[in-house]
Amino acid sequence: MYQPRLETMPQEEIRKLQLERLKRTLAHIRDRNPDYHKRLGGIHPEDIKDLSDLEKLPFLTKDDLREAYPFGLACAPKEAFVRFHMSSGTTGTPVVNPFTRSDVEQWAEIMARCLSAAGVTHADVLQITPGFGLFNGGFGFHYGAERIGCFVVPIGPGRTLMQLKFMKDFGTTALGAISSYPLRLIEVAKEEGFDFRETRLRVGIFGAEVWSDETRKYIEEAMGIETFDIIGMTETGGVGLGIDCKAHEGLHVWEDHYLVEIVDPETGKALPDGEEGEMVVTTLTREGLPLIRYRTRDITRIISRERCSCGRTMLRVARIKGRTDDMLKVKGVNFYPRQVEEILMRHPETTPEYLIRFGKRAGKDFIEILVESKVQDETLRERLAEEIYNYLGFHAKVILLKEGELPRREGKAKRVEKVKE
Amino acid sequence: MYQPRLETMPQEEIRKLQLERLKRTLAHIRDRNPDYHKRLGGIHPEDIKDLSDLEKLPFLTKDDLREAYPFGLACAPKEAFVRFHMSSGTTGTPVVNPFTRSDVEQWAEIMARCLSAAGVTHADVLQITPGFGLFNGGFGFHYGAERIGCFVVPIGPGRTLMQLKFMKDFGTTALGAISSYPLRLIEVAKEEGFDFRETRLRVGIFGAEVWSDETRKYIEEAMGIETFDIIGMTETGGVGLGIDCKAHEGLHVWEDHYLVEIVDPETGKALPDGEEGEMVVTTLTREGLPLIRYRTRDITRIISRERCSCGRTMLRVARIKGRTDDMLKVKGVNFYPRQVEEILMRHPETTPEYLIRFGKRAGKDFIEILVESKVQDETLRERLAEEIYNYLGFHAKVILLKEGELPRREGKAKRVEKVKE
Ligand SMILES: [Zn+2]
Ligand SMILES: [Zn+2]
Repeated sequence: MYQPRLETMPQEEIRKLQLERLKRTLAHIRDRNPDYHKRLGGIHPEDIKDLSDLEKLPFLTKDDLREAYPFGLACAPKEAFVRFHMSSGTTGTPVVNPFTRSDVEQWAEIMARCLSAAGVTHADVLQITPGFGLFNGGFGFHYGAERIGCFVVPIGPGRTLMQLKFMKDFGTTALGAISSYPLRLIEVAKEEGFDFRETRLRVGIFGAEVWSDETRKYIEEAMGIETFDIIGMTETGGVGLGIDCKAHEGLHVWEDHYLVEIVDPETGKALPDGEEGEMVVTTLTREGLPLIRYRTRDITRIISRERCSCGRTMLRVARIKGRTDDMLKVKGVNFYPRQVEEILMRHPETTPEYLIRFGKRAGKDFIEILVESKVQDETLRERLAEEIYNYLGFHAKVILLKEGELPRREGKAKRVEKVKE
Repeated sequence: MYQPRLETMPQEEIRKLQLERLKRTLAHIRDRNPDYHKRLGGIHPEDIKDLSDLEKLPFLTKDDLREAYPFGLACAPKEAFVRFHMSSGTTGTPVVNPFTRSDVEQWAEIMARCLSAAGVTHADVLQITPGFGLFNGGFGFHYGAERIGCFVVPIGPGRTLMQLKFMKDFGTTALGAISSYPLRLIEVAKEEGFDFRETRLRVGIFGAEVWSDETRKYIEEAMGIETFDIIGMTETGGVGLGIDCKAHEGLHVWEDHYLVEIVDPETGKALPDGEEGEMVVTTLTREGLPLIRYRTRDITRIISRERCSCGRTMLRVARIKGRTDDMLKVKGVNFYPRQVEEILMRHPETTPEYLIRFGKRAGKDFIEILVESKVQDETLRERLAEEIYNYLGFHAKVILLKEGELPRREGKAKRVEKVKE
């Protein structure tokens, strides 16, 4: 553990600390950004007697953050900012998260905890494949690694052949990546006759995209590694909000820095532990862009608030099932792409590359599931269609493609295509 | 000044410090890498009585560093490395420079000095356009900025339209770039009707490529900024070995970290101050890859060892005229691309985009100078050809192109093309 005392703090102490830090954050907003304070109904720290009072406050959405571009919700003078990160903004205005010096320290601390939870020490060689720059992934791993003192291979995204060569040349033991990237590495390794078992690679820390348990198993087997699911996003201050430990019984959220609620995505009402809903995040230690009740759009549930077998007391959430804005509604049925992925990946004949294509054709709803497969077999095709119907409740046309037929992309994978008539 | 006491140290104190640190570096190599020690003829620190004894030691070349890939000349155990940077390696084996924690600190320190010399303070907004990752440029500016505490726009290379937008949105006051990139920014700004004078941009810190005084003047006028020429490379531990100050009377080299010699590139003999030759660098404080007498291939001369009007005492070298491996020999005449650039840029009709194409055609040497021009005028063409003959001593065919005809590249510009028959 990077910070054993903090990471194993009794839950009631965590609650006390959260209450105190929530009040401090509300005071910080009040003192630094009158518009933001007004958004919160002019609430004063003294109005918060208990963590449950948080429910009195309004939600903050991604659109709110977009409208605030670049510094509308920022809570520090510009001279106090040392850098910022930004959501991709490929569609519309990006979300900008400006960091004060203390925010950078906070980020480095939680990322160091995440790396430690995954068993990374100063003796490791960490290959960082997410991009550096505006995207938060690369720098997140970088700051965590600085704290841990491990040897970093700062390669960034792409150049898959070079990635494999570097794994050998520099003795990489740990890999940080967007969760679809290992699939690309595995694919190129196969083409090149590259055997991960001849490398020292031991640990993978993957996130930024929803990846199913089946994909995870596939990656772990193909690479011969243990993987860790890391969460966090630009809005919360970058990757590192939480990660699973070696027990792999849920993702620990660093509760001294983040307060997590699970709410019904439709009604916004708080859900009891164990029920699936949207994760809402309140930051407790951020200065540049403190978040009060931010709707992450991530669907998960609270698994446990009990002490984990790893010793950590910080609450555990389930791996992200999907994003509310990923949810598809086809032929009257709601589902997440990850649910389709889970069904496909159960079949060893298919590769992890698939595309859900849907929309209207000649006025009628249609849905096609294109998946690459090692065999072009009618029985397999029918079995997949049947399982999709059985598990998800709709009839889809399954199309088997040859390996390599779907286009590969650098960065996040494209799994869904909506066809407009 | 970032470190006034060090930056204004009397020259004799600098010499004392250099001698002491040279000995320490030799001892470090002896204790950490027996092969490297043997390369140096098994020299012991005690054998060095005076800085002039350095001449007894052999040169180190880029090929030596390549052959050592990845850690053959490294002088620390792998556990002590925290990251590395790498020359592009587009041709052949790359040069890897592994950094210890202390090397990162050393780099941050010299980059902070460079930023300060360019007048950048914590109140500035620095847009970092060189790449982050294996290339050293992005992280060099990043570490320097961390020390200074300025607000960084970590955008990295490319996306020129977004670069211009960000300059306005984030109030950029200082720009860090590879020296050909401002030309691209200026070009796109013209197309878009973007006026740099409506931004807060004040300072440009450019390097990594040879850029002529004429290009510099062009950039300063088009952007309405003061520019600073920064030197340093992967091998020396990254950008930041030296920079010019506001006096612009030569580039200060941080002599407490680097010992500079100027030698005849043919004979390797030391040249007296003022004479043009190849810069040879010995690192005095690096741990991971200490360099003893590294042949940088950069052609420059020592301008002064006197105290500069800025107060700094560190010696000043001229702006880099060319690289020994850039030197062209055409029709029996030696010249550097920068010399051609200087002639072209004197004419306001031409743009900064040009290409020197040479080689053999039908068994005969030929050289063509393609340059974009606002006018396609025979008189201009003849005048350029005549000036090239007068200044450089060879007849070249000058070809005037329309603006935008030469291909633009991200990263380093292509100015020379050798045609093979
Ligand atoms: Zn645990
Ligand atoms: Zn000066």
